[in-house]
Amino acid sequence: MTMKKALLGLALAAAALPLSAQQKPVYLDASKPIEERVEDALSRLTLEEKVKLTHAQSKFSSAGVPRLGIPDVWTDDGPHGIRPDVLWDEWEQAGCTNDSCVAFPALTCLAATWNPEMSLLYGQSIGEEARYRNKSVLLGPGVNIYRTPLNGRNFEYMGEDPYLAGKMVVPYIRGVQQNGVAACVKHFALNNHEVNRHNTNVIVDDRALYEIYLPAFKMAVQEGGAWSIMGAYNLYKGQHLCHNQYTLNDILKGEWGFDGVVVSDWGGTHDTRQAIANGLDMEFGSWTNGLSNGASNAYDNYYLANPYLKLIREGKVGTKELDDKVRRILRLIFRTVMNPDRPWGSMLSPEHYEAARRIGEEGIVLLQNKGNVLPIDLDRAKKIVVVGENAVKMMTVGGGSSSLKVQRELSPLDGIRQRVAGKAKVVYARGYVGDASGEYNGVVTGQNLKDDRTPEELIAEAVKEAQDADYVIFIGGLNKSNGQDCEDSDREGLGLSYGQDTVISALAKANKNLIVVNISGNAIAMPWVNEVPAIVQDWYLGSEAGSALAAILMGDVNPSGKLPFTFPVKLEDCPAHSLGEYTGKRSKDIIDIKYNESIFVGYRWADKQKKVKPLFPFGHGLSYTTFEYGKPVADSKTMQADGTLTVKVTVKNVGSREGQEVVQMYISDKKSSLPRPVKELKGFRKIKLAPGESKEVVFTIDKEALSFFDDAQHAWVAEPGKFEAIIAASAADIKGVVPFELK
Amino acid sequence: MTMKKALLGLALAAAALPLSAQQKPVYLDASKPIEERVEDALSRLTLEEKVKLTHAQSKFSSAGVPRLGIPDVWTDDGPHGIRPDVLWDEWEQAGCTNDSCVAFPALTCLAATWNPEMSLLYGQSIGEEARYRNKSVLLGPGVNIYRTPLNGRNFEYMGEDPYLAGKMVVPYIRGVQQNGVAACVKHFALNNHEVNRHNTNVIVDDRALYEIYLPAFKMAVQEGGAWSIMGAYNLYKGQHLCHNQYTLNDILKGEWGFDGVVVSDWGGTHDTRQAIANGLDMEFGSWTNGLSNGASNAYDNYYLANPYLKLIREGKVGTKELDDKVRRILRLIFRTVMNPDRPWGSMLSPEHYEAARRIGEEGIVLLQNKGNVLPIDLDRAKKIVVVGENAVKMMTVGGGSSSLKVQRELSPLDGIRQRVAGKAKVVYARGYVGDASGEYNGVVTGQNLKDDRTPEELIAEAVKEAQDADYVIFIGGLNKSNGQDCEDSDREGLGLSYGQDTVISALAKANKNLIVVNISGNAIAMPWVNEVPAIVQDWYLGSEAGSALAAILMGDVNPSGKLPFTFPVKLEDCPAHSLGEYTGKRSKDIIDIKYNESIFVGYRWADKQKKVKPLFPFGHGLSYTTFEYGKPVADSKTMQADGTLTVKVTVKNVGSREGQEVVQMYISDKKSSLPRPVKELKGFRKIKLAPGESKEVVFTIDKEALSFFDDAQHAWVAEPGKFEAIIAASAADIKGVVPFELK
Repeated sequence: MTMKKALLGLALAAAALPLSAQQKPVYLDASKPIEERVEDALSRLTLEEKVKLTHAQSKFSSAGVPRLGIPDVWTDDGPHGIRPDVLWDEWEQAGCTNDSCVAFPALTCLAATWNPEMSLLYGQSIGEEARYRNKSVLLGPGVNIYRTPLNGRNFEYMGEDPYLAGKMVVPYIRGVQQNGVAACVKHFALNNHEVNRHNTNVIVDDRALYEIYLPAFKMAVQEGGAWSIMGAYNLYKGQHLCHNQYTLNDILKGEWGFDGVVVSDWGGTHDTRQAIANGLDMEFGSWTNGLSNGASNAYDNYYLANPYLKLIREGKVGTKELDDKVRRILRLIFRTVMNPDRPWGSMLSPEHYEAARRIGEEGIVLLQNKGNVLPIDLDRAKKIVVVGENAVKMMTVGGGSSSLKVQRELSPLDGIRQRVAGKAKVVYARGYVGDASGEYNGVVTGQNLKDDRTPEELIAEAVKEAQDADYVIFIGGLNKSNGQDCEDSDREGLGLSYGQDTVISALAKANKNLIVVNISGNAIAMPWVNEVPAIVQDWYLGSEAGSALAAILMGDVNPSGKLPFTFPVKLEDCPAHSLGEYTGKRSKDIIDIKYNESIFVGYRWADKQKKVKPLFPFGHGLSYTTFEYGKPVADSKTMQADGTLTVKVTVKNVGSREGQEVVQMYISDKKSSLPRPVKELKGFRKIKLAPGESKEVVFTIDKEALSFFDDAQHAWVAEPGKFEAIIAASAADIKGVVPFELK
Repeated sequence: MTMKKALLGLALAAAALPLSAQQKPVYLDASKPIEERVEDALSRLTLEEKVKLTHAQSKFSSAGVPRLGIPDVWTDDGPHGIRPDVLWDEWEQAGCTNDSCVAFPALTCLAATWNPEMSLLYGQSIGEEARYRNKSVLLGPGVNIYRTPLNGRNFEYMGEDPYLAGKMVVPYIRGVQQNGVAACVKHFALNNHEVNRHNTNVIVDDRALYEIYLPAFKMAVQEGGAWSIMGAYNLYKGQHLCHNQYTLNDILKGEWGFDGVVVSDWGGTHDTRQAIANGLDMEFGSWTNGLSNGASNAYDNYYLANPYLKLIREGKVGTKELDDKVRRILRLIFRTVMNPDRPWGSMLSPEHYEAARRIGEEGIVLLQNKGNVLPIDLDRAKKIVVVGENAVKMMTVGGGSSSLKVQRELSPLDGIRQRVAGKAKVVYARGYVGDASGEYNGVVTGQNLKDDRTPEELIAEAVKEAQDADYVIFIGGLNKSNGQDCEDSDREGLGLSYGQDTVISALAKANKNLIVVNISGNAIAMPWVNEVPAIVQDWYLGSEAGSALAAILMGDVNPSGKLPFTFPVKLEDCPAHSLGEYTGKRSKDIIDIKYNESIFVGYRWADKQKKVKPLFPFGHGLSYTTFEYGKPVADSKTMQADGTLTVKVTVKNVGSREGQEVVQMYISDKKSSLPRPVKELKGFRKIKLAPGESKEVVFTIDKEALSFFDDAQHAWVAEPGKFEAIIAASAADIKGVVPFELK
């Protein structure tokens, strides 16, 4: 007995060397292929360890395998900056002082740059901040399609067009992942508004699903190589999208071959058996309270925790799905936190502020500029009046999970003041009082939130100041409060709140040099569009909001942004509100929402309904210079099914200052067996031209650009016949058409 | 103007690439030598960034340089396990569930193993836990010399002998640092008791300083290659030891060439100018409250924060010291968190529990075993009675900064119960009630802390159970409460508290097979030593406390630990209390404490005072087998000054079971110009012998082993003349003497 025990002791002693004294096992050997490491690690795990990997251990982390040295996975909200750390199990901030970040522009702004280089710069920069903060998964970017301007979360997405969103999301993902940080593309899929997001069951035809709502995700996965994806809150075919057989198993992992991790949105998991079978890999943020079933903390009650273990132990489910989930999670870990080659990241660097500023500058859209009011001529401006709460409101706080703790945020007013210092007097008048209530009411920089004056008094003050001003800049729009641009709520209408329309009209009467700057992530109604000479579409620009806007207004930077979504005149001009369905009231029951408009979203609808002219079309954006388009030419009149066609167009800067133009190419299928949009974006290039300079832009068209999704065949089809390549400066500003035939 | 701005914009754009897109700078290139990386990083830092590196940003971290991707430095208390995470700026635990650790035995136990392999195993194991938890600096080990048994913190140290402590600390450091985690050797130096630790000014002669109090630190630095060291709270030559010209600049960084970081103990910094000039590199835990001087948080008011910056900006101090500090901090960072080759670490592994158990088993000391009561013979034992609170008390909680949150801790009672299950009945009687008050009162596993019975009732119950028992195991001693073995307090006397002596005497009368297990990190008085047949010196063994003790008691493991400090009969037998000074009462003023006993600490004192026999001598420890020593022989009768001498001795296991013996070699200088101890430990080997097996042990003596520190010359001197190499089984059990002469 004692002898046996002693022998056993010796055997144990041999095995019991610490890891550092053992020969390196395969899973720890980074020189080995990841798949080999995954299999080796998998083979060492107990059932309990496997299950533990599949769900959260705290608000934002999941446990690793401590005994094997496999680290925890730390996620953090993006997509505009790295969210400050919260307490282990509370939403309350942890009070750290090392988690202030640089806030980058909202993704609508990035989309509005139409510049993949800016997207790469964005991804690299935010990826560095995530890496420095030791996050393995950045919960972003978002590419849900802009279906209605009421969606409170559109500001986090990339607009209405699947091709633009897809082409812009790919470099972002690559940039992030260069840092050994996984992008987590969200919210997959069909989460196109916020109200009732947990109980909306989307009914959509396969054509719209494949042609409109999925392509950006597909590009994110196949071109961007995204390592993780987040399921959406809502339902499709009656299953929540965090555990959805069709979208996750059939399409994402099946058709697209995704080898990464499907993460639930926080609280998006609802059923253990579905979570097991329907493609979810990691469960986060569930609110399954209580400590029953031997659970030592709430996380043990997660759908993929003890309830999963119980089903396996009782033989009611096997471990095939578990091993698949764990393989994906291990792959994620080896790609991120256990990749010894990943760089160290960085935070708060001048380079990141510079990136935020440049992306902001390239994303601001000059919507209207009658009489060339802009840029502001500082040689003749003595007094500039700035009106509007958004000139001073912090926009990096609020809006939901994208809310940040920034190191600094330069407000539009301060940006303007800094830029014109010593040249002109800047007077600020508030003009109106916005919503100061709610969790995310924001902070007014250097201003008292409270203002007891009546709207009339506020307007009178602004008008009085405006009357003798050289320029009046109204800076308003939406904000990050509930019912404006904010997660978990939608807007109630297309119009501006807080009586802003009245203020703008009054200012227009008081001063002819009025510039309206709309800060928003959504289209707004502009009943005063004809009263105002200059209109600028600004966005939530983050830390460098003020400097970017000032650079555009003063002409240091020539505007080059183009709208990534259509501005309708009125809500009824949106197909989701005229043809399709949209949920308005809150409900607790599952609500079917039919996307009756099908593929006719955004400009596809505007093109189809010829008499419905948008306020500002998709792709629209002016410059301080003028571009002249030559006649586009194709290298052939026909294209073979497996061949390509090249279309060239020369663009010349005929104005007097350097500028950038986004040259757009749409494809029009002249006749097809199924209805098709009048045209669809299939190419774009942003080019920089010095005064007098010309550049030739070349587009290559392949079969993919001509294809539609045939729902009967469940396949992409390019039907032979006549097509047009349309060169345009916006969806409504066609510069040339090149007909060709697909053989 | 616009042109200039545009050109500037282009230049900025080129510089403003994110790190991931730039060519790798030298400081980020791990293939470059560390010193090159240090200089490159240093050259990029602003004054403010340099100052920021030198002090804390939270309870346990200091800021890195975010814009350059240089990470924060995270420290955490050791030395027995990795302390749970606390809130950013509060001592309160952060409530994480990923920070439970394996508790390893207290360092007194490690020292008692006399086995450097155990020390390496310890360092590797705890280093892996630190690394897995992403800590860059482990705040341990401690090697302050055991000067008085009243010191509340002796349990965290390695005993009374500088050679033993030094030889045992070196592998610990190497093991920790293999993981890319810096050991932080503490508390440098002369922190030999806790009461008035912030205001005790030690007065000690250079001989005692160099021969007794510094050697373990020197070995830690020079042999162990420690990357950081922690200053002590108290004073020496009127300067606090966290910024002490003599110990830090002259000795540590000067004489010893230390290139690492000096870290203040938490709250050990008291003066900006001294902190700048006197060798401190990083300030932690200061309580300089208030937000004056433009400070945005309390850390900005640290002595090495804004006050430092102010002195530099005003030209009152230069930046030479700052650059030296920053070089050291950068070196630390490149050695730890920015070393891409460091392993991943691990936590809570079977290997770590196994390490904790093995170290515990090798450290337990069998002090007395009359009539071979031990090991317990389970073939004849029907009833075993366990008495005493320490049988059930959690010892991983309390004691100060070494307090842990463990995944599990097996109590002695549960360890015994598990081991004898199915063989004997185990009955538990509490026997006495300890101190249940105070912050660190511990938790009694499975027992109610409250017990309203009188001491007489408790004893009567225990005696009643003991009377018909086959064995009685009393498990008592000290605990982790204030006034027992606990940081920031000392014991009030050598005796046991809570009436334990009475309980033991009563049990001794009731049953002849009484085993007393003393759990402590200090010597205790044993007025009952002659009444009790078997006495076991147990320690705070951490997670595997119960299994290690049970293995010794039942004879699964043959005891092999040896005392790392002397057990005196009474307090007056300690030189610190008879000859030297010791602070008793709390005071707010600076108190001079004279170490009048000089080098005569521990067995050096016992040897000198021949009539003062210790209760148990240094180096003492019995076995269940018997070792026979042959006659030691030297390879020569003389030794040249720069040569060596070899002494060999054969040891044979003449008993009937395998066992380990610690063969000790002391050197005796027969005549010298300055007083020397009778003998000093200069070699030891732990050998394992099967029954009947012999092994030859070889010691090599060099000049260093013969030297003393000549304070007049300020140099180590080996005087020619007669010496003896003494082979012994303890300081009082001499097995043979080999005379030789140094030429």
